[in-house]
Amino acid sequence: MDAVASPPRPPLYIRMNERDNVAIVANDGGLPAGTVFADGLRLVEKVPQGHKVALVDLAAGEAVRRYDVVIGRAARAIPAGSWVHERLLEMPEARSLDGLPIATVRPPSLPPLEGYSFEGYRNADGSVGTRNILAITTTVQCVAGVVDFAVRRIKAELLPRFPNVDDVIGLEHSYGCGVAIDAPDAIVPIRTLRNITLNPNFGNEVMVVSLGCEKLQPERLLPPGSFTIVDERNVADVGESADAKLDVVCLQDEAHVGFMSMIDSIMATAEEHLERLDARRRQTVPASELVVGVQCGGSDAFSGVTANPAVGFCTDLLVRAGATVMFSEVTEVRDGIDQLTSRAVDAEVAAAMIREMAWYDDYLKRGSVDRSANTTPGNKKGGLSNIVEKAMGSIVKSGSAPISGVLAPGEKLRQRGLIYAATPASDFICGTLQLAAGMNLHVFTTGRGTPYGLAQVPVIKVATRSDLARRWHDLMDLNAGRIADGEATIEELGWELFRLMLEVASGRRTWAEQWKLHNALVLFNPAPVT
Amino acid sequence: MDAVASPPRPPLYIRMNERDNVAIVANDGGLPAGTVFADGLRLVEKVPQGHKVALVDLAAGEAVRRYDVVIGRAARAIPAGSWVHERLLEMPEARSLDGLPIATVRPPSLPPLEGYSFEGYRNADGSVGTRNILAITTTVQCVAGVVDFAVRRIKAELLPRFPNVDDVIGLEHSYGCGVAIDAPDAIVPIRTLRNITLNPNFGNEVMVVSLGCEKLQPERLLPPGSFTIVDERNVADVGESADAKLDVVCLQDEAHVGFMSMIDSIMATAEEHLERLDARRRQTVPASELVVGVQCGGSDAFSGVTANPAVGFCTDLLVRAGATVMFSEVTEVRDGIDQLTSRAVDAEVAAAMIREMAWYDDYLKRGSVDRSANTTPGNKKGGLSNIVEKAMGSIVKSGSAPISGVLAPGEKLRQRGLIYAATPASDFICGTLQLAAGMNLHVFTTGRGTPYGLAQVPVIKVATRSDLARRWHDLMDLNAGRIADGEATIEELGWELFRLMLEVASGRRTWAEQWKLHNALVLFNPAPVT
Ligand SMILES: [Ca+2]
Ligand SMILES: [Ca+2]
Ligand SMILES: [Ca+2]
Ligand SMILES: [Ca+2]
Ligand SMILES: [Ca+2]
Repeated sequence: MDAVASPPRPPLYIRMNERDNVAIVANDGGLPAGTVFADGLRLVEKVPQGHKVALVDLAAGEAVRRYDVVIGRAARAIPAGSWVHERLLEMPEARSLDGLPIATVRPPSLPPLEGYSFEGYRNADGSVGTRNILAITTTVQCVAGVVDFAVRRIKAELLPRFPNVDDVIGLEHSYGCGVAIDAPDAIVPIRTLRNITLNPNFGNEVMVVSLGCEKLQPERLLPPGSFTIVDERNVADVGESADAKLDVVCLQDEAHVGFMSMIDSIMATAEEHLERLDARRRQTVPASELVVGVQCGGSDAFSGVTANPAVGFCTDLLVRAGATVMFSEVTEVRDGIDQLTSRAVDAEVAAAMIREMAWYDDYLKRGSVDRSANTTPGNKKGGLSNIVEKAMGSIVKSGSAPISGVLAPGEKLRQRGLIYAATPASDFICGTLQLAAGMNLHVFTTGRGTPYGLAQVPVIKVATRSDLARRWHDLMDLNAGRIADGEATIEELGWELFRLMLEVASGRRTWAEQWKLHNALVLFNPAPVT
Repeated sequence: MDAVASPPRPPLYIRMNERDNVAIVANDGGLPAGTVFADGLRLVEKVPQGHKVALVDLAAGEAVRRYDVVIGRAARAIPAGSWVHERLLEMPEARSLDGLPIATVRPPSLPPLEGYSFEGYRNADGSVGTRNILAITTTVQCVAGVVDFAVRRIKAELLPRFPNVDDVIGLEHSYGCGVAIDAPDAIVPIRTLRNITLNPNFGNEVMVVSLGCEKLQPERLLPPGSFTIVDERNVADVGESADAKLDVVCLQDEAHVGFMSMIDSIMATAEEHLERLDARRRQTVPASELVVGVQCGGSDAFSGVTANPAVGFCTDLLVRAGATVMFSEVTEVRDGIDQLTSRAVDAEVAAAMIREMAWYDDYLKRGSVDRSANTTPGNKKGGLSNIVEKAMGSIVKSGSAPISGVLAPGEKLRQRGLIYAATPASDFICGTLQLAAGMNLHVFTTGRGTPYGLAQVPVIKVATRSDLARRWHDLMDLNAGRIADGEATIEELGWELFRLMLEVASGRRTWAEQWKLHNALVLFNPAPVT
């Protein structure tokens, strides 16, 4: 490999707010003891990259502030220039859900952003797809092996005849039977599966493979009237027809004699849907048709400094353009709940957020844990000392717009603007629930690095650090580390991401699509299995 | 299709015990009102196949007996010859876990069965594989897309050079991060994954793909000393070496530059393991090396009449041959707990069974349900009115041998004989937990029909009815419906299954293997996700 040596960068720390008494070290590889910053601060010990340095002498018990928030109390006296690692921080209690500020902030109204568009697939139900995919819904894990077999055959034998169709996928999952389907919490996985079936990228073409004896019967998964059925005889004849029948291949159907008869049924059914999908063409639609889900995973201290603020800026652009943006991950906003309730458009939205936080507090408590179970070894290695600090860096993805709606896990969007979609922070569960909400584009920020991808929607991955972006040059779609390097501003990166979104929504492939990296659908099932 | 008409069968009902006051209709398609049986009983209404008919007049509130057990009370007076469907049965309360009979039954000691063997792969740890598979362990769902990509390349480019290796698979799952890994119940999914890695069919070759920042670090999944590491330099030099290192490909390793460098690392690591696996040969081993997991799914009223009793007879043969048999599915034995505690070899084993039942009762209660959440629409359509009746038909898979041990979910076997491995009844979760216990052969009975299969072990599927076996002729490996047809006895079918097991263990492919039907590993995680 050839490499051109760059001149060493001057020592740099990044402070998020002028009231903060700690900052993080920006330089690759960290900085040694004795390093002197431009303002005269001298490191009394080595501080790794992304980790915190005390800007002033901190007394034992003193509040340690970052993002202008108390991320903990000093466990002992900490001299200026020291490494403030997680063992020196005592984590505060979770903010009580009583007495929160409700819709107190009137954010400066954001001027509309007009004239931006992308090339998308308009659907009969009014939504717009960014991809044109045949998705085969499954009611139960029992049919997964058969559907896999059929999908391989469809891709090899049918798909070449339908060049306008991007892909054929089975919507496989572990739910559907062997579960307490009448438990109160079973509504979460059931509506998640129902709503994923209706994701805009599947063109309102609904076909189902069922076993026959499973608990999650097709009519329970997709009750009559739950979606607009495209009439099977004629693509022009679209509408909510009372006579339209759910298109189900049932493996236990007595007409099936021999394994290949099941495969033949699935293929024949798929072919009808492929014909209609193949007749569709992209058309120019306003940027307001974007439905973006944002999340982070493999976070480090740069997540909240580079990638997430750029996403937050872009979130504001999207909201100004009339689009929909979902942010999620309950345990990563729990410690900033006061920021969210104050940004709610009204008391009802704030109450819905509090309801979701309270539900999750209780859910975690039933399992004898709390929100602090969120942080990972990688987070801590990356400089994030605790969930409070992680949350402050995560929440900035939501930008500054008013929060106009809240979704419980698995619910489908009913409105535009900035939406809080309550989900676990687990990358796969969050992504699966955002798919159910109706996401047509996914933005994922990462500091430690993850090859995350979904078969259902394009995923734009944003690196928080240039080192990661360099090493993972064919996995990361955008390098927000340039902000820490002083090569781009948050605003510039935000605009770059916005333009990249429009391109990807129009068909440009992401790296995860290039390599066909597909993670599993993982359902959130808070109810028991049987 | 040509078909030769068979003479219609005489009307037949099947009574399980002479004290029963109901029996099930055996004939295909059920029997119409007016049908008269050989003993003079006349049907007062149509009764579907597998459903119950009252053999005598039942008074309102009278105990309805099947398998010599009270499966419910008559909701109203039921005349002889009536269809006793689920709405006519009031389900009894679950048997209290106090005051159970403990180790009271001394089953007639079963004479040893000698001289049976199969051709298996002996492993360094003493276990025996029935297949020779390279399994790539993953710590976290994040790496699944990359591992899928690598496995496709390994199969296409490396596997043809190693003809003695049956398959290469990724052990993918939804666990590893975004989970409350320090919650008390997290021990279940973690030990499940650990023990699956050590399944006998993987030849003690352990290789791991890790992301790097995940909660389930490789050293936490497989702590030093948790398994016998095959020395990497020399296949002959096998043993527990303190210096041996866990063979991990970490995607976030700084040495990885570009996606293909990750794939190259995985392939190079896989090649070393493939070389050693390929050098192995099958050798004759006694039948006592079989470790059989039995379960049922898609059950009907015939499950407990044909397939499960045949499996139970075969279970006794296996125990007599010194082999290991696991039966499972907590909610399907809960109503027969008194039968199990009385068959326990000692008080300790009985106490362990009670502990597992109590744990599950509590787990279901936390989710506001009970054991009755088990039954499915298909069960009821197939004639099983409630969980008590289903359980009586399920429990017979355990045969008559003393129960010599109990495993909590995810634990690994430490002894031979008949073992109660406590698992949910969910087919995939049960199969996954039996894999973790060390199963090298899986037996699955089904009445409604399921194409169930696993990539990790061969699955022998046994049909409860001839109609299913005829239609699913290339999915069902054995037809126990011949028992109901009067063409074979339970003993004959049990012996047939025993011989089929030895053949399949020796390499004969099952139908699920023929079509490569693979269901997902589904972990039992009673702890919260974050
Ligand atoms: Ca996150
Ligand atoms: Ca996440
Ligand atoms: Ca190696
Ligand atoms: Ca069962
Ligand atoms: Ca089962």
